[in-house]
Amino acid sequence: MIRRGFQAVIRLGHHRVLPGAPHILPRLNRTSAFGSSTDSLVSRFCLEKTDLKDYALPNASWCPDMLNLYQEFLEKTKTDGWIKLPSFKSNRDHIQGLKLPFGLAATSDKSDWRIFTRCLQVEGQGYEYVIFFHPSRKKSICLFQPGPYLEGAPGFAHGGSLAAMMDETFSKTAYLAGEGLFTLSLNIRFKNLIPVGSLAVLNVDVEKIEDQKLYMSCIAQSRDQQRVYAKSSGVFLQLQLEEELSQ
Amino acid sequence: MIRRGFQAVIRLGHHRVLPGAPHILPRLNRTSAFGSSTDSLVSRFCLEKTDLKDYALPNASWCPDMLNLYQEFLEKTKTDGWIKLPSFKSNRDHIQGLKLPFGLAATSDKSDWRIFTRCLQVEGQGYEYVIFFHPSRKKSICLFQPGPYLEGAPGFAHGGSLAAMMDETFSKTAYLAGEGLFTLSLNIRFKNLIPVGSLAVLNVDVEKIEDQKLYMSCIAQSRDQQRVYAKSSGVFLQLQLEEELSQ
Repeated sequence: MIRRGFQAVIRLGHHRVLPGAPHILPRLNRTSAFGSSTDSLVSRFCLEKTDLKDYALPNASWCPDMLNLYQEFLEKTKTDGWIKLPSFKSNRDHIQGLKLPFGLAATSDKSDWRIFTRCLQVEGQGYEYVIFFHPSRKKSICLFQPGPYLEGAPGFAHGGSLAAMMDETFSKTAYLAGEGLFTLSLNIRFKNLIPVGSLAVLNVDVEKIEDQKLYMSCIAQSRDQQRVYAKSSGVFLQLQLEEELSQ
Repeated sequence: MIRRGFQAVIRLGHHRVLPGAPHILPRLNRTSAFGSSTDSLVSRFCLEKTDLKDYALPNASWCPDMLNLYQEFLEKTKTDGWIKLPSFKSNRDHIQGLKLPFGLAATSDKSDWRIFTRCLQVEGQGYEYVIFFHPSRKKSICLFQPGPYLEGAPGFAHGGSLAAMMDETFSKTAYLAGEGLFTLSLNIRFKNLIPVGSLAVLNVDVEKIEDQKLYMSCIAQSRDQQRVYAKSSGVFLQLQLEEELSQ
Protein backbone atom coordinates (compact mmCIF):
# COMPACT_ATOMS: atom_id res chain seq x y z
CA MET A 1 0.00 0.00 0.00
CA ILE A 2 2.77 2.35 0.97
CA ARG A 3 4.81 1.54 -2.08
CA ARG A 4 1.99 1.67 -4.56
CA GLY A 5 0.74 4.95 -3.18
CA PHE A 6 4.01 6.85 -3.22
CA GLN A 7 5.20 5.42 -6.53
CA ALA A 8 1.91 6.12 -8.21
CA VAL A 9 2.09 9.74 -7.19
CA ILE A 10 5.68 10.05 -8.32
CA ARG A 11 4.71 8.62 -11.71
CA LEU A 12 2.60 11.74 -12.26
CA GLY A 13 5.66 13.45 -13.56
CA HIS A 14 9.20 12.66 -14.60
CA HIS A 15 10.79 16.09 -14.85
CA ARG A 16 13.88 16.57 -12.76
CA VAL A 17 15.97 19.65 -12.19
CA LEU A 18 19.54 19.11 -13.35
CA PRO A 19 22.49 20.68 -11.58
CA GLY A 20 23.70 23.61 -13.58
CA ALA A 21 20.50 23.89 -15.62
CA PRO A 22 19.14 27.43 -15.88
CA HIS A 23 16.50 28.29 -13.32
CA ILE A 24 13.31 30.06 -14.31
CA LEU A 25 11.61 32.30 -11.81
CA PRO A 26 7.96 32.77 -12.75
CA ARG A 27 5.43 34.75 -10.75
CA LEU A 28 4.64 32.51 -7.82
CA ASN A 29 1.11 32.20 -6.57
CA ARG A 30 0.47 32.41 -2.86
CA THR A 31 -1.91 29.50 -3.29
CA SER A 32 -0.79 25.94 -3.95
CA ALA A 33 -2.30 23.40 -6.31
CA PHE A 34 -4.57 22.38 -3.45
CA GLY A 35 -5.85 25.79 -2.41
CA SER A 36 -4.09 26.25 0.95
CA SER A 37 -2.46 29.66 1.10
CA THR A 38 1.08 30.06 2.38
CA ASP A 39 -0.33 32.28 5.14
CA SER A 40 -2.63 29.57 6.46
CA LEU A 41 0.14 26.95 6.27
CA VAL A 42 2.51 29.24 8.16
CA SER A 43 -0.01 30.09 10.87
CA ARG A 44 -0.79 26.40 11.42
CA PHE A 45 2.95 25.59 11.48
CA CYS A 46 4.01 28.39 13.83
CA LEU A 47 1.81 27.62 16.83
CA GLU A 48 1.23 30.72 18.92
CA LYS A 49 0.84 28.76 22.14
CA THR A 50 2.53 25.45 22.75
CA ASP A 51 4.27 23.54 25.51
CA LEU A 52 6.58 21.91 23.00
CA LYS A 53 10.26 22.77 23.29
CA ASP A 54 11.55 24.89 20.43
CA TYR A 55 15.09 23.74 19.56
CA ALA A 56 15.72 26.67 17.24
CA LEU A 57 16.64 29.08 20.02
CA PRO A 58 20.10 30.35 20.96
CA ASN A 59 22.12 28.35 23.46
CA ALA A 60 25.61 28.59 24.95
CA SER A 61 27.14 26.51 22.14
CA TRP A 62 26.28 28.99 19.38
CA CYS A 63 29.33 30.75 17.91
CA PRO A 64 29.32 34.59 17.76
CA ASP A 65 28.63 34.60 13.99
CA MET A 66 25.54 32.45 14.51
CA LEU A 67 24.27 34.54 17.42
CA ASN A 68 24.78 37.82 15.57
CA LEU A 69 23.06 36.67 12.40
CA TYR A 70 20.21 35.18 14.44
CA GLN A 71 19.63 38.56 16.09
CA GLU A 72 19.82 40.28 12.71
CA PHE A 73 17.10 38.05 11.24
CA LEU A 74 15.03 38.29 14.41
CA GLU A 75 14.92 42.05 13.82
CA LYS A 76 13.81 41.39 10.27
CA THR A 77 10.84 39.38 11.57
CA LYS A 78 9.53 42.66 12.96
CA THR A 79 10.16 44.84 9.93
CA ASP A 80 10.75 42.83 6.79
CA GLY A 81 8.27 39.94 6.70
CA TRP A 82 10.64 37.17 7.78
CA ILE A 83 9.28 34.44 10.06
CA LYS A 84 11.34 32.40 12.50
CA LEU A 85 10.23 28.77 12.22
CA PRO A 86 9.91 26.74 15.42
CA SER A 87 11.71 23.39 15.43
CA PHE A 88 10.20 20.63 17.53
CA LYS A 89 11.55 17.23 18.51
CA SER A 90 9.58 15.40 15.83
CA ASN A 91 7.70 16.14 12.63
CA ARG A 92 4.75 14.53 14.42
CA ASP A 93 4.62 17.70 16.53
CA HIS A 94 4.74 19.91 13.44
CA ILE A 95 1.75 18.24 11.82
CA GLN A 96 -0.52 17.75 14.83
CA GLY A 97 -4.06 16.98 13.74
CA LEU A 98 -2.86 15.97 10.30
CA LYS A 99 -1.67 12.72 8.77
CA LEU A 100 0.17 11.65 5.66
CA PRO A 101 -1.90 10.95 2.56
CA PHE A 102 -2.21 7.69 0.60
CA GLY A 103 -2.06 5.33 3.53
CA LEU A 104 1.51 6.34 4.37
CA ALA A 105 1.30 5.50 8.05
CA ALA A 106 3.85 4.42 10.62
CA THR A 107 3.81 0.68 11.23
CA SER A 108 6.29 0.55 14.12
CA ASP A 109 5.05 0.83 17.70
CA LYS A 110 8.12 2.66 19.01
CA SER A 111 7.05 5.73 20.94
CA ASP A 112 10.30 7.68 21.16
CA TRP A 113 10.87 9.45 17.88
CA ARG A 114 13.06 12.30 16.77
CA ILE A 115 13.40 14.19 13.56
CA PHE A 116 16.85 13.29 12.25
CA THR A 117 18.22 16.83 12.46
CA ARG A 118 17.31 16.97 16.17
CA CYS A 119 18.59 13.50 17.01
CA LEU A 120 21.32 14.71 19.38
CA GLN A 121 20.19 16.40 22.57
CA VAL A 122 23.41 17.77 24.06
CA GLU A 123 23.74 21.42 23.08
CA GLY A 124 26.41 22.01 20.46
CA GLN A 125 27.19 18.32 19.96
CA GLY A 126 25.21 17.77 16.78
CA TYR A 127 22.93 19.95 14.70
CA GLU A 128 22.47 23.54 15.80
CA TYR A 129 20.26 25.36 13.34
CA VAL A 130 17.43 27.81 12.90
CA ILE A 131 15.38 28.44 9.78
CA PHE A 132 13.86 31.80 8.84
CA PHE A 133 11.23 31.79 6.08
CA HIS A 134 9.92 34.65 3.95
CA PRO A 135 6.40 33.77 2.76
CA SER A 136 6.01 36.30 -0.05
CA ARG A 137 9.55 35.90 -1.38
CA LYS A 138 9.33 32.08 -1.08
CA LYS A 139 12.81 31.84 0.33
CA SER A 140 14.51 30.59 3.48
CA ILE A 141 17.71 31.17 5.37
CA CYS A 142 19.09 28.41 7.56
CA LEU A 143 21.84 29.18 10.06
CA PHE A 144 23.68 25.88 10.57
CA GLN A 145 26.47 25.10 13.01
CA PRO A 146 27.69 21.47 12.85
CA GLY A 147 28.97 19.99 16.11
CA PRO A 148 31.76 17.45 16.73
CA TYR A 149 29.35 14.48 16.42
CA LEU A 150 28.67 15.44 12.80
CA GLU A 151 32.24 14.85 11.75
CA GLY A 152 33.46 13.39 8.47
CA ALA A 153 37.11 14.26 7.76
CA PRO A 154 38.80 15.12 11.08
CA GLY A 155 37.72 18.61 12.16
CA PHE A 156 35.13 19.07 9.42
CA ALA A 157 31.42 18.34 9.00
CA HIS A 158 30.47 15.14 7.18
CA GLY A 159 29.17 15.82 3.66
CA GLY A 160 26.11 13.78 4.60
CA SER A 161 25.32 16.07 7.52
CA LEU A 162 25.19 19.06 5.17
CA ALA A 163 23.12 17.03 2.68
CA ALA A 164 20.61 16.28 5.44
CA MET A 165 20.55 19.92 6.57
CA MET A 166 19.84 21.01 2.99
CA ASP A 167 17.12 18.38 2.62
CA GLU A 168 15.50 19.49 5.86
CA THR A 169 15.61 23.19 4.94
CA PHE A 170 14.21 22.37 1.49
CA SER A 171 11.55 20.26 3.19
CA LYS A 172 10.23 22.94 5.53
CA THR A 173 10.41 25.57 2.77
CA ALA A 174 8.62 23.32 0.28
CA TYR A 175 5.85 22.56 2.74
CA LEU A 176 5.19 26.17 3.67
CA ALA A 177 5.63 27.57 0.17
CA GLY A 178 3.33 25.06 -1.51
CA GLU A 179 2.59 21.86 0.38
CA GLY A 180 5.71 20.12 -0.87
CA LEU A 181 5.92 16.93 1.16
CA PHE A 182 8.37 14.42 -0.31
CA THR A 183 11.87 14.82 -1.69
CA LEU A 184 12.02 13.53 -5.25
CA SER A 185 15.62 14.48 -5.93
CA LEU A 186 18.57 16.14 -4.27
CA ASN A 187 21.68 17.16 -6.21
CA ILE A 188 24.68 18.59 -4.38
CA ARG A 189 28.03 19.92 -5.51
CA PHE A 190 30.51 20.27 -2.67
CA LYS A 191 33.09 23.06 -2.85
CA ASN A 192 34.74 23.41 0.56
CA LEU A 193 34.59 21.63 3.88
CA ILE A 194 32.76 23.26 6.82
CA PRO A 195 34.92 23.41 9.97
CA VAL A 196 33.12 21.90 12.96
CA GLY A 197 31.76 24.60 15.27
CA SER A 198 31.58 27.30 12.61
CA LEU A 199 28.59 28.85 10.88
CA ALA A 200 27.29 27.92 7.44
CA VAL A 201 24.49 30.04 6.00
CA LEU A 202 22.10 28.22 3.68
CA ASN A 203 20.14 30.38 1.24
CA VAL A 204 17.17 28.52 -0.22
CA ASP A 205 14.95 29.78 -3.04
CA VAL A 206 11.83 28.27 -4.55
CA GLU A 207 12.58 28.63 -8.25
CA LYS A 208 9.28 27.40 -9.64
CA ILE A 209 6.20 25.33 -8.86
CA GLU A 210 5.05 23.23 -11.78
CA ASP A 211 3.22 19.93 -12.35
CA GLN A 212 2.75 19.39 -8.59
CA LYS A 213 6.47 19.78 -8.01
CA LEU A 214 8.52 22.47 -6.29
CA TYR A 215 11.97 23.20 -7.71
CA MET A 216 14.38 24.71 -5.22
CA SER A 217 17.99 25.83 -5.10
CA CYS A 218 20.40 26.30 -2.21
CA ILE A 219 23.80 27.82 -1.69
CA ALA A 220 25.66 27.19 1.57
CA GLN A 221 28.43 29.61 2.38
CA SER A 222 30.31 31.41 5.12
CA ARG A 223 28.72 34.48 6.66
CA ASP A 224 30.92 36.85 4.65
CA GLN A 225 30.02 34.92 1.46
CA GLN A 226 33.71 34.54 0.67
CA ARG A 227 33.66 30.77 0.98
CA VAL A 228 31.07 28.62 -0.78
CA TYR A 229 30.63 25.27 0.97
CA ALA A 230 28.17 23.69 -1.45
CA LYS A 231 25.43 24.34 -3.97
CA SER A 232 22.39 22.17 -4.41
CA SER A 233 19.01 21.76 -6.01
CA GLY A 234 16.02 19.82 -4.78
CA VAL A 235 12.65 18.81 -6.16
CA PHE A 236 9.71 18.12 -3.86
CA LEU A 237 6.36 16.55 -4.62
CA GLN A 238 3.23 18.45 -3.62
CA LEU A 239 0.81 16.37 -1.57
CA GLN A 240 -1.89 17.56 0.76
CA LEU A 241 -1.84 16.40 4.37
CA GLU A 242 -5.16 14.93 5.42
CA GLU A 243 -7.19 16.01 8.44
CA GLU A 244 -7.12 13.35 11.14
CA LEU A 245 -10.50 11.97 12.13
CA SER A 246 -11.16 12.26 15.85
CA GLN A 247 -11.65 8.88 17.52
CA MET B 1 44.83 27.85 3.63
CA ILE B 2 42.08 25.30 3.93
CA ARG B 3 39.96 26.96 1.31
CA ARG B 4 42.73 27.61 -1.16
CA GLY B 5 44.01 24.08 -0.86
CA PHE B 6 40.75 22.25 -1.40
CA GLN B 7 39.46 24.57 -4.10
CA ALA B 8 42.73 24.44 -5.98
CA VAL B 9 42.54 20.66 -6.08
CA ILE B 10 38.95 20.68 -7.19
CA ARG B 11 39.84 23.05 -10.00
CA LEU B 12 41.93 20.27 -11.50
CA GLY B 13 38.82 19.00 -13.17
CA HIS B 14 35.28 20.10 -13.87
CA HIS B 15 33.59 16.92 -15.05
CA ARG B 16 30.57 15.89 -13.09
CA VAL B 17 28.46 12.78 -13.38
CA LEU B 18 24.88 13.65 -14.27
CA PRO B 19 21.96 11.63 -12.99
CA GLY B 20 20.71 9.44 -15.77
CA ALA B 21 23.90 9.76 -17.82
CA PRO B 22 25.20 6.44 -19.15
CA HIS B 23 27.89 4.83 -17.05
CA ILE B 24 31.01 3.40 -18.62
CA LEU B 25 32.73 0.49 -16.95
CA PRO B 26 36.34 0.28 -18.08
CA ARG B 27 38.90 -2.20 -16.81
CA LEU B 28 39.76 -0.92 -13.39
CA ASN B 29 43.33 -0.96 -12.19
CA ARG B 30 44.08 -2.27 -8.74
CA THR B 31 46.46 0.63 -8.34
CA SER B 32 45.35 4.23 -7.88
CA ALA B 33 46.82 7.33 -9.44
CA PHE B 34 49.20 7.48 -6.48
CA GLY B 35 50.47 3.92 -6.54
CA SER B 36 48.83 2.48 -3.43
CA SER B 37 47.17 -0.82 -4.24
CA THR B 38 43.68 -1.59 -3.03
CA ASP B 39 45.13 -4.52 -1.09
CA SER B 40 47.50 -2.32 0.91
CA LEU B 41 44.75 0.24 1.58
CA VAL B 42 42.42 -2.51 2.77
CA SER B 43 45.00 -4.11 5.03
CA ARG B 44 45.81 -0.74 6.64
CA PHE B 45 42.08 0.01 7.04
CA CYS B 46 41.08 -3.36 8.49
CA LEU B 47 43.37 -3.50 11.53
CA GLU B 48 43.99 -7.09 12.59
CA LYS B 49 44.48 -6.15 16.23
CA THR B 50 42.83 -3.18 17.83
CA ASP B 51 41.17 -2.17 21.08
CA LEU B 52 38.80 0.12 19.23
CA LYS B 53 35.13 -0.79 19.36
CA ASP B 54 33.74 -2.00 16.04
CA TYR B 55 30.18 -0.65 15.67
CA ALA B 56 29.47 -2.78 12.59
CA LEU B 57 28.63 -5.90 14.57
CA PRO B 58 25.18 -7.41 15.21
CA ASN B 59 23.24 -6.25 18.25
CA ALA B 60 19.80 -6.93 19.69
CA SER B 61 18.21 -4.12 17.67
CA TRP B 62 18.96 -5.67 14.28
CA CYS B 63 15.88 -6.94 12.45
CA PRO B 64 15.87 -10.56 11.17
CA ASP B 65 16.45 -9.46 7.54
CA MET B 66 19.57 -7.54 8.59
CA LEU B 67 20.91 -10.39 10.73
CA ASN B 68 20.33 -12.98 8.00
CA LEU B 69 21.96 -10.96 5.26
CA TYR B 70 24.87 -10.10 7.55
CA GLN B 71 25.48 -13.82 8.12
CA GLU B 72 25.18 -14.47 4.40
CA PHE B 73 27.88 -11.91 3.57
CA LEU B 74 30.03 -13.04 6.46
CA GLU B 75 30.10 -16.48 4.79
CA LYS B 76 31.12 -14.78 1.55
CA THR B 77 34.13 -13.23 3.30
CA LYS B 78 35.47 -16.78 3.63
CA THR B 79 34.73 -17.96 0.11
CA ASP B 80 34.07 -15.12 -2.28
CA GLY B 81 36.57 -12.33 -1.58
CA TRP B 82 34.23 -10.00 0.33
CA ILE B 83 35.67 -8.07 3.28
CA LYS B 84 33.69 -6.83 6.27
CA LEU B 85 34.82 -3.29 7.04
CA PRO B 86 35.23 -2.29 10.67
CA SER B 87 33.45 0.89 11.73
CA PHE B 88 35.03 2.94 14.50
CA LYS B 89 33.74 5.89 16.47
CA SER B 90 35.63 8.44 14.39
CA ASN B 91 37.42 8.67 11.07
CA ARG B 92 40.43 9.70 13.17
CA ASP B 93 40.60 6.04 14.25
CA HIS B 94 40.39 4.85 10.65
CA ILE B 95 43.34 6.94 9.50
CA GLN B 96 45.69 6.51 12.45
CA GLY B 97 49.21 7.58 11.54
CA LEU B 98 47.92 9.55 8.58
CA LYS B 99 46.71 13.11 8.13
CA LEU B 100 44.77 15.03 5.51
CA PRO B 101 46.75 16.61 2.69
CA PHE B 102 47.01 20.29 1.74
CA GLY B 103 46.95 21.72 5.25
CA LEU B 104 43.40 20.50 5.87
CA ALA B 105 43.72 20.22 9.63
CA ALA B 106 41.26 20.50 12.46
CA THR B 107 41.35 23.90 14.15
CA SER B 108 38.98 23.16 17.03
CA ASP B 109 40.31 21.82 20.31
CA LYS B 110 37.26 19.67 21.11
CA SER B 111 38.37 16.18 22.03
CA ASP B 112 35.10 14.25 21.77
CA TRP B 113 34.43 13.52 18.14
CA ARG B 114 32.19 11.11 16.31
CA ILE B 115 31.76 10.24 12.70
CA PHE B 116 28.28 11.47 11.82
CA THR B 117 26.89 8.02 11.01
CA ARG B 118 27.90 6.80 14.49
CA CYS B 119 26.67 9.87 16.35
CA LEU B 120 24.00 8.01 18.34
CA GLN B 121 25.22 5.47 20.86
CA VAL B 122 22.03 3.70 21.95
CA GLU B 123 21.66 0.49 19.95
CA GLY B 124 18.91 0.69 17.37
CA GLN B 125 18.14 4.36 18.00
CA GLY B 126 20.02 5.83 15.06
CA TYR B 127 22.23 4.35 12.37
CA GLU B 128 22.70 0.60 12.35
CA TYR B 129 24.83 -0.40 9.40
CA VAL B 130 27.63 -2.60 8.18
CA ILE B 131 29.60 -2.29 4.95
CA PHE B 132 31.08 -5.22 3.01
CA PHE B 133 33.63 -4.38 0.30
CA HIS B 134 34.86 -6.49 -2.60
CA PRO B 135 38.36 -5.27 -3.60
CA SER B 136 38.66 -6.85 -7.03
CA ARG B 137 35.08 -6.10 -8.09
CA LYS B 138 35.32 -2.55 -6.69
CA LYS B 139 31.88 -2.73 -5.16
CA SER B 140 30.28 -2.48 -1.74
CA ILE B 141 27.13 -3.59 -0.01
CA CYS B 142 25.82 -1.60 2.94
CA LEU B 143 23.15 -3.09 5.18
CA PHE B 144 21.34 -0.10 6.69
CA GLN B 145 18.62 -0.08 9.34
CA PRO B 146 17.42 3.42 10.29
CA GLY B 147 16.24 3.87 13.88
CA PRO B 148 13.48 6.11 15.29
CA TYR B 149 15.89 9.04 15.80
CA LEU B 150 16.46 9.20 12.05
CA GLU B 151 12.86 10.06 11.31
CA GLY B 152 11.55 12.42 8.65
CA ALA B 153 7.89 11.77 7.82
CA PRO B 154 6.29 9.97 10.80
CA GLY B 155 7.39 6.32 10.76
CA PHE B 156 9.91 6.70 7.93
CA ALA B 157 13.59 7.54 7.64
CA HIS B 158 14.51 11.14 6.81
CA GLY B 159 15.71 11.52 3.22
CA GLY B 160 18.80 13.22 4.61
CA SER B 161 19.66 10.17 6.72
CA LEU B 162 19.71 8.00 3.59
CA ALA B 163 21.71 10.68 1.75
CA ALA B 164 24.30 10.60 4.53
CA MET B 165 24.38 6.79 4.54
CA MET B 166 24.97 6.81 0.77
CA ASP B 167 27.70 9.44 1.12
CA GLU B 168 29.41 7.43 3.85
CA THR B 169 29.25 4.16 1.87
CA PHE B 170 30.56 5.97 -1.22
CA SER B 171 33.27 7.49 0.94
CA LYS B 172 34.66 4.24 2.35
CA THR B 173 34.38 2.55 -1.05
CA ALA B 174 36.11 5.43 -2.82
CA TYR B 175 38.95 5.46 -0.33
CA LEU B 176 39.62 1.74 -0.52
CA ALA B 177 39.06 1.42 -4.27
CA GLY B 178 41.33 4.32 -5.19
CA GLU B 179 42.14 6.82 -2.47
CA GLY B 180 38.99 8.84 -3.06
CA LEU B 181 38.88 11.30 -0.17
CA PHE B 182 36.38 14.11 -0.77
CA THR B 183 32.84 14.12 -2.10
CA LEU B 184 32.61 16.41 -5.12
CA SER B 185 28.99 15.68 -5.94
CA LEU B 186 26.07 13.60 -4.77
CA ASN B 187 22.89 13.17 -6.81
CA ILE B 188 19.95 11.26 -5.41
CA ARG B 189 16.56 10.32 -6.79
CA PHE B 190 14.16 9.12 -4.09
CA LYS B 191 11.56 6.50 -5.03
CA ASN B 192 10.01 5.16 -1.82
CA LEU B 193 10.25 5.88 1.88
CA ILE B 194 12.17 3.46 4.14
CA PRO B 195 10.10 2.38 7.16
CA VAL B 196 11.99 2.97 10.42
CA GLY B 197 13.41 -0.29 11.80
CA SER B 198 13.48 -2.09 8.46
CA LEU B 199 16.43 -3.05 6.26
CA ALA B 200 17.63 -1.14 3.21
CA VAL B 201 20.38 -2.74 1.13
CA LEU B 202 22.72 -0.29 -0.62
CA ASN B 203 24.59 -1.65 -3.65
CA VAL B 204 27.53 0.57 -4.57
CA ASP B 205 29.66 0.21 -7.71
CA VAL B 206 32.74 2.11 -8.80
CA GLU B 207 31.89 2.86 -12.43
CA LYS B 208 35.15 4.47 -13.49
CA ILE B 209 38.26 6.22 -12.22
CA GLU B 210 39.34 9.10 -14.42
CA ASP B 211 41.17 12.43 -14.03
CA GLN B 212 41.75 11.83 -10.31
CA LYS B 213 38.04 11.26 -9.76
CA LEU B 214 36.03 8.18 -8.85
CA TYR B 215 32.55 7.88 -10.32
CA MET B 216 30.19 5.70 -8.32
CA SER B 217 26.57 4.59 -8.42
CA CYS B 218 24.25 3.28 -5.74
CA ILE B 219 20.86 1.66 -5.58
CA ALA B 220 19.10 1.30 -2.23
CA GLN B 221 16.33 -1.26 -2.09
CA SER B 222 14.52 -3.80 0.05
CA ARG B 223 16.15 -7.18 0.58
CA ASP B 224 13.88 -8.87 -1.97
CA GLN B 225 14.69 -6.10 -4.48
CA GLN B 226 10.98 -5.51 -5.02
CA ARG B 227 11.06 -2.00 -3.60
CA VAL B 228 13.61 0.60 -4.73
CA TYR B 229 14.13 3.28 -2.10
CA ALA B 230 16.53 5.51 -4.01
CA LYS B 231 19.19 5.64 -6.70
CA SER B 232 22.22 7.86 -6.56
CA SER B 233 25.54 8.73 -8.08
CA GLY B 234 28.59 10.24 -6.42
CA VAL B 235 31.92 11.63 -7.53
CA PHE B 236 34.93 11.62 -5.21
CA LEU B 237 38.26 13.35 -5.57
CA GLN B 238 41.42 11.25 -5.26
CA LEU B 239 43.90 12.65 -2.77
CA GLN B 240 46.67 10.85 -0.97
CA LEU B 241 46.72 10.88 2.81
CA GLU B 242 50.08 11.99 4.16
CA GLU B 243 52.18 10.07 6.67
CA GLU B 244 52.23 11.84 10.02
CA LEU B 245 55.65 12.88 11.23
CA SER B 246 56.47 11.46 14.65
CA GLN B 247 57.02 14.18 17.26
